[in-house]
Amino acid sequence: MIKVAVWGTGMMGQGLLGYILDRPKDIDLVGVIDRHPEKHGRTVGETIGCDCDIQVTADFASVLAKKPDVVCILTASNLSEIADQVEASVKAGANVIGIAETLAYPQASDAEWTARFDALAKQHGVSILGTGINPGFVLDALPIAMSSICLRIDRIEATRVNDLAPFGPTVMESQGVGTTVEQFEAGVADGSIVGHIGFHESIGLIASALGWEIDEIVETRAPIVTTVERQTASAHVMPGEVCGCRHTANGYSKGELKIELIHPQQIRPELEGVETGDYINIIGDPNVSLANRPEIPGGKGTYASVGNYIPLIGAAKPGIVTVADMPLPRFWSPTK
Amino acid sequence: MIKVAVWGTGMMGQGLLGYILDRPKDIDLVGVIDRHPEKHGRTVGETIGCDCDIQVTADFASVLAKKPDVVCILTASNLSEIADQVEASVKAGANVIGIAETLAYPQASDAEWTARFDALAKQHGVSILGTGINPGFVLDALPIAMSSICLRIDRIEATRVNDLAPFGPTVMESQGVGTTVEQFEAGVADGSIVGHIGFHESIGLIASALGWEIDEIVETRAPIVTTVERQTASAHVMPGEVCGCRHTANGYSKGELKIELIHPQQIRPELEGVETGDYINIIGDPNVSLANRPEIPGGKGTYASVGNYIPLIGAAKPGIVTVADMPLPRFWSPTK
Repeated sequence: MIKVAVWGTGMMGQGLLGYILDRPKDIDLVGVIDRHPEKHGRTVGETIGCDCDIQVTADFASVLAKKPDVVCILTASNLSEIADQVEASVKAGANVIGIAETLAYPQASDAEWTARFDALAKQHGVSILGTGINPGFVLDALPIAMSSICLRIDRIEATRVNDLAPFGPTVMESQGVGTTVEQFEAGVADGSIVGHIGFHESIGLIASALGWEIDEIVETRAPIVTTVERQTASAHVMPGEVCGCRHTANGYSKGELKIELIHPQQIRPELEGVETGDYINIIGDPNVSLANRPEIPGGKGTYASVGNYIPLIGAAKPGIVTVADMPLPRFWSPTK
Repeated sequence: MIKVAVWGTGMMGQGLLGYILDRPKDIDLVGVIDRHPEKHGRTVGETIGCDCDIQVTADFASVLAKKPDVVCILTASNLSEIADQVEASVKAGANVIGIAETLAYPQASDAEWTARFDALAKQHGVSILGTGINPGFVLDALPIAMSSICLRIDRIEATRVNDLAPFGPTVMESQGVGTTVEQFEAGVADGSIVGHIGFHESIGLIASALGWEIDEIVETRAPIVTTVERQTASAHVMPGEVCGCRHTANGYSKGELKIELIHPQQIRPELEGVETGDYINIIGDPNVSLANRPEIPGGKGTYASVGNYIPLIGAAKPGIVTVADMPLPRFWSPTK
């Protein structure tokens, strides 16, 4: 039995709790932490609709006192936001698996944070891993694995075409859905329209795994303008308006394009015949041309990835580790 | 610099030598061994057409005396055939990477051999790894990696559709190319038509990685009968004759089909509109539907895989290891 605590009970945390409760003979769920008062006093069973009477609590110290082997942190995107959670977990002697996009390759956004937490984890003999679908799999781990059958690589191109329809108003705003082209351009300029978070991490993961030095990353964010009416539960877009953001990032080494990541995100792409999917092209010897259709679902894939690393993290080397340091990832079959 | 010796200078060995000589700042090629007298006295340069004056030799002891870090063994398919080579390398303190299909998961064909060499490698503090395209990647490592984003898996189906056209008469015979249907059936019955080697290894790799117990493997070998004339350098098949072998292996757990591997191999499939490729379907939550077209070339992919594990094998745990124990595989970029 692996003792696990879950920190964060949003959509991703709830999904991971379902995964964990499907493995009662493998995982001992020692506690569930959430800082939002409205979540407290409810049981996990009430939160996700199942038969579990563990209370959701803000009292993380009492949960960490139960000495979990692994704390899964599914709370926020930035290193500064999760620092206290990671620090408390590591000091309690727990390994950490988190879905913060920046944690997939923390060197990309904050070398100082990375060095500090790497040292802290080593001091306590535990590992810190960031994972998820993107970053963590589609635009980094998968192209890295496919690169292993190449004799020579000139360039890696990875594309993820997905549908934003399941998401709520926050995501719609951050992607510029429902804006005019002018509003979109203004939103990109003032930072309110951000597109995807994780390109620098994916490029860093690929480059470090392959031994490439990427000295420049150029991003573009372009509006995807619909020619047809598109509607979801949280957005309604008319022809001529913006239905999503085509965000790209190119990684260069001494002026040569080595990594090209393309991530157009929009609502209901099928209305204009756009097929969703994950695509990897390696230009080299041999070429690789891989398509996964439809795309791996971002939500399920992310919390599955966290859960499936739980049995592997205990054997990882202490410190900050990435999906490229870990063994080949794999599904963890529940003991029956 | 990693000191590497290459054992075997057939097509695969020659390909790996090219890979190695492309990395002069990373790999020190300490020697090249081949047991065939007609290969001796020739230099590597004469053998593969490049600028390298290392002599191919049968005197493996003199090569192993140079204390290679890694010996790459590309000689034969069966554990009994490579045993002496592995033993000599391990006793010389070298890690071993081999392409013998059976070495990808030696437990599948010979538990006793596996235990003996695992103990020997541990005694000498080195690792033994089997890899290649198939087994080693397409029908095992890749589906294992894709499984990592699943919450639940009912069944894994992996298919490799390839073209036998580049191969010579030995492969044509072992696949039954050019036979009548009656001759094909007789060849399967008497063991002269074998189809693919590696299904038991791929099923063993997947099952052990995912924690499944496979208690029965059922194989089928069916003739692929052409309706059009098909010709290659080493085969000529008329309509109604056999142009290849559709070999499948189903792995069951308590009567339930869990792993289905499908590997139709034929000459010039495009003449009847058959597209070559590698296909992975995971039936579960979520489903995965991945296609890599055209297929990863078996030859290049195999020696690239061997080469790309060279910088990783030194940090592996001692004993027999598999691609599922190793870190995420990746291309090894040559130092410029």
